[in-house]
Amino acid sequence: MDEIRRVKRELVHRGKIVNFYEDYMALPNGNTAVWDFIEHKGAAAVVPVTEEGKILMVRQYRNALERYTLEIPAGAVNDVEEPKEKCAARELEEETGYKAGKLEWLMNVNTTVAFCNEFIGIYVARDLIPARQHLDEDEFLNVEEHGLDELLSMIYDGKITDAKTSAALLAYRVKYR
Amino acid sequence: MDEIRRVKRELVHRGKIVNFYEDYMALPNGNTAVWDFIEHKGAAAVVPVTEEGKILMVRQYRNALERYTLEIPAGAVNDVEEPKEKCAARELEEETGYKAGKLEWLMNVNTTVAFCNEFIGIYVARDLIPARQHLDEDEFLNVEEHGLDELLSMIYDGKITDAKTSAALLAYRVKYR
Repeated sequence: MDEIRRVKRELVHRGKIVNFYEDYMALPNGNTAVWDFIEHKGAAAVVPVTEEGKILMVRQYRNALERYTLEIPAGAVNDVEEPKEKCAARELEEETGYKAGKLEWLMNVNTTVAFCNEFIGIYVARDLIPARQHLDEDEFLNVEEHGLDELLSMIYDGKITDAKTSAALLAYRVKYR
Repeated sequence: MDEIRRVKRELVHRGKIVNFYEDYMALPNGNTAVWDFIEHKGAAAVVPVTEEGKILMVRQYRNALERYTLEIPAGAVNDVEEPKEKCAARELEEETGYKAGKLEWLMNVNTTVAFCNEFIGIYVARDLIPARQHLDEDEFLNVEEHGLDELLSMIYDGKITDAKTSAALLAYRVKYR
């Protein structure tokens, strides 16, 4: 394959959690094009497994979808330098009120490769230790405990649609069962 | 849970494939906040399974990640009204040069629920019939055939990171094997 080459990147808008750029591209066929690029600082997510093998999930209103979703706990890094594992441990505790006795890397996902660099490190948390839930000021969610088979059914029923959540639950299922 | 309510949505920038909005939110604690919203028109993706049980994958340069990725065939709808199944059939043929004799819904994913409404309908394609590859003007990719176990290993090795691809391959594995 010939190379696609970026000639220039121009900031169009700095948002609260993502920034919008226009990328000026030189294409292998000699043409030029302007492509969208959304910059995200990265995130981590956790599959928290209880002693009974249940999964802790969070239910929250998602403005982008205009509905409630059921997701694994997750959140953005504090800054691009923050290790994903540290972010995962922090988000688990903040959102669910449990610390992870053991945190094991499961997979990495890029959520939207066509236009965004968002990267999520996903971990499995076990040996959960009760701690204190402390949500961000603009974060409102409920914690729920579900069986893995029930959650997998919800993926195939179209009730769970969050990509990181489906990828993580299925990856956990294939790896550990 | 109290309701989170959007008071106003303001267009900040119209991009090539996504649009950037500022959403003015009224939060349950009485505060107001401005949240990012990225509008995407939707997409479809396909797990194309050959007669020998191999999966057709596409390798392409992703500017947002600054590297090549291995993904299932996928692409955006022509407009928001286009049925996802029609889009899936079209993208399969355009990207791989095969028509689907049989196309079956597998799952839906929302790629980035925190800030974007992108929605991908994912299908399994079987009874593949040779047709003609015809890529978009600014699309450059190679088609590869891989075994499912090899692809699953690449997910757990961190070599496949595209969220829709990992979710789809794992969902196919759990449902059909």
